[in-house]
Amino acid sequence: MIRDLWLVGIGTGSPSHLTLEGVQALREAAVVLMPHKGDEKDALAALRRRILEASGSLARVAPFDYPERDPALPYAERVALWHDEIARRWKAAHDAVGAPGPVALMVWGDPSLYDSTLRIAARLPSKPRVRVVPGITAIQALTAAHAIPLNTINGEVRITTGRRLRDGGWPEGAETLVVMLDGECSFRGLDPEGLTIWWGAYLGSGDQILCMGPLAEVSDEIARMRAEARERHGWIMDTYLLRRG
Amino acid sequence: MIRDLWLVGIGTGSPSHLTLEGVQALREAAVVLMPHKGDEKDALAALRRRILEASGSLARVAPFDYPERDPALPYAERVALWHDEIARRWKAAHDAVGAPGPVALMVWGDPSLYDSTLRIAARLPSKPRVRVVPGITAIQALTAAHAIPLNTINGEVRITTGRRLRDGGWPEGAETLVVMLDGECSFRGLDPEGLTIWWGAYLGSGDQILCMGPLAEVSDEIARMRAEARERHGWIMDTYLLRRG
Ligand SMILES: C[S@@+](CC[C@H](N)C(=O)[O-])C[C@H]1O[C@@H](n2cnc3c(N)ncnc32)[C@H](O)[C@@H]1O
Ligand SMILES: C[S@@+](CC[C@H](N)C(=O)[O-])C[C@H]1O[C@@H](n2cnc3c(N)ncnc32)[C@H](O)[C@@H]1O
Repeated sequence: MIRDLWLVGIGTGSPSHLTLEGVQALREAAVVLMPHKGDEKDALAALRRRILEASGSLARVAPFDYPERDPALPYAERVALWHDEIARRWKAAHDAVGAPGPVALMVWGDPSLYDSTLRIAARLPSKPRVRVVPGITAIQALTAAHAIPLNTINGEVRITTGRRLRDGGWPEGAETLVVMLDGECSFRGLDPEGLTIWWGAYLGSGDQILCMGPLAEVSDEIARMRAEARERHGWIMDTYLLRRG
Repeated sequence: MIRDLWLVGIGTGSPSHLTLEGVQALREAAVVLMPHKGDEKDALAALRRRILEASGSLARVAPFDYPERDPALPYAERVALWHDEIARRWKAAHDAVGAPGPVALMVWGDPSLYDSTLRIAARLPSKPRVRVVPGITAIQALTAAHAIPLNTINGEVRITTGRRLRDGGWPEGAETLVVMLDGECSFRGLDPEGLTIWWGAYLGSGDQILCMGPLAEVSDEIARMRAEARERHGWIMDTYLLRRG
């Protein structure tokens, strides 16, 4: 039975993003749930194992595979069933190693940001106590890499997804917009007039690439860099900040 | 001359928020600029020293005092002159210890979020290379403490200030709103219907206090807790998340 589940934010690509609290949690955990490939990119799985090893953790590793999502189902139902199935697999993986004590899961970035582990955890039949260890997000990795402030002085910031930007365009009144989960360079659908972009991919890792400039001037360059890098690595994760004025 | 300036995010109240990259940066720094009281609360100054010591850093400490802001000046000018003066004091403090090598400054939370150190750094006459080490923000400390997601599934998030919430009310169309820099419980000016609040003060520290619930029901309680805690500690820092629906 999983009684204590610790969701440990590990940052977004550098083992040195881990916090001291994260190191300690991995050390104190009895079991670490470890996703296999499937949904996961190979490089990221390797990074997880490297981080766990470097932490000095002696936890038992409980591997699980991500299930397939059923494309025939409507979105909300598809996600709900997928989460149910992942929760079952966590439980089965944990049962299989059968060590008592806290169970940890290493979560990309911070567990609160565009991540489903908290929602999956709520589906575990054992209703575990959930502890969240915060981690560096892709947003902070982006602003750090460019050495820029997220907000203007006392300004507002919006965080959104590629899909929302495509569907809704530039949000009315927005000054600073951070876009995540964008597989399609959705900034190309915007009127670039007055917009500056700070873009980054593989943030925090040795493969990090950056580009910034007036959107009108660098939009095509980013799309080209992104396509090339994606081709070369087989996958890509990118985030960008757009500022008006 | 400050040639390399490292802004090291230290998180928001727990020494264990520091990342491994942060530890390493403090170790490799030759000088650490250290604010004295004045603008700083005593407890926070003590925490900074504790973090530095625990990192194993052998850096020379260069103390500086924050200047006063001139209340007679208009806001933008007041801030600009204040930043100029802080940059001068960084330089003077660094000159006084005179050790060559990278200069570090420990920044509360993450250096990109409602923080002026990047803007002050840009005013240094030596035009240093600025490196930013990301840190855990009050937002992540808040969502971790409550074990809640920041966003709804694929939803948008807005980050704003107490002043903006007071002046502008609930932003049209917003679903999730994070409020920082609010000295006045500005949530009390909102129509609470349909809003839930997750509030936290001294997040990450041993003094952390939390409250959550429908805004209509917990609004007064939070205001009371906040006033009491502020009285007891002599200062307070709080952040909250509001969600509609
Ligand atoms: C499912 S979300 C997870 C976000 C994560 N929980 C965080 O705190 O950053 C994945 C999205 O995060 C962003 N992302 C994550 N890691 C990244 C990285 N190393 N470089 C650039 N973007 C990244 C991308 O926008 C990607 O589509
Ligand atoms: C000048 S801003 C600095 C924010 C910081 N750079 C960060 O990344 O969180 C100060 C505001 O951050 C929030 N804050 C910082 N530390 C906090 C803490 N330990 N608990 C609650 N709120 C905090 C409060 O809203 C406060 O008014």
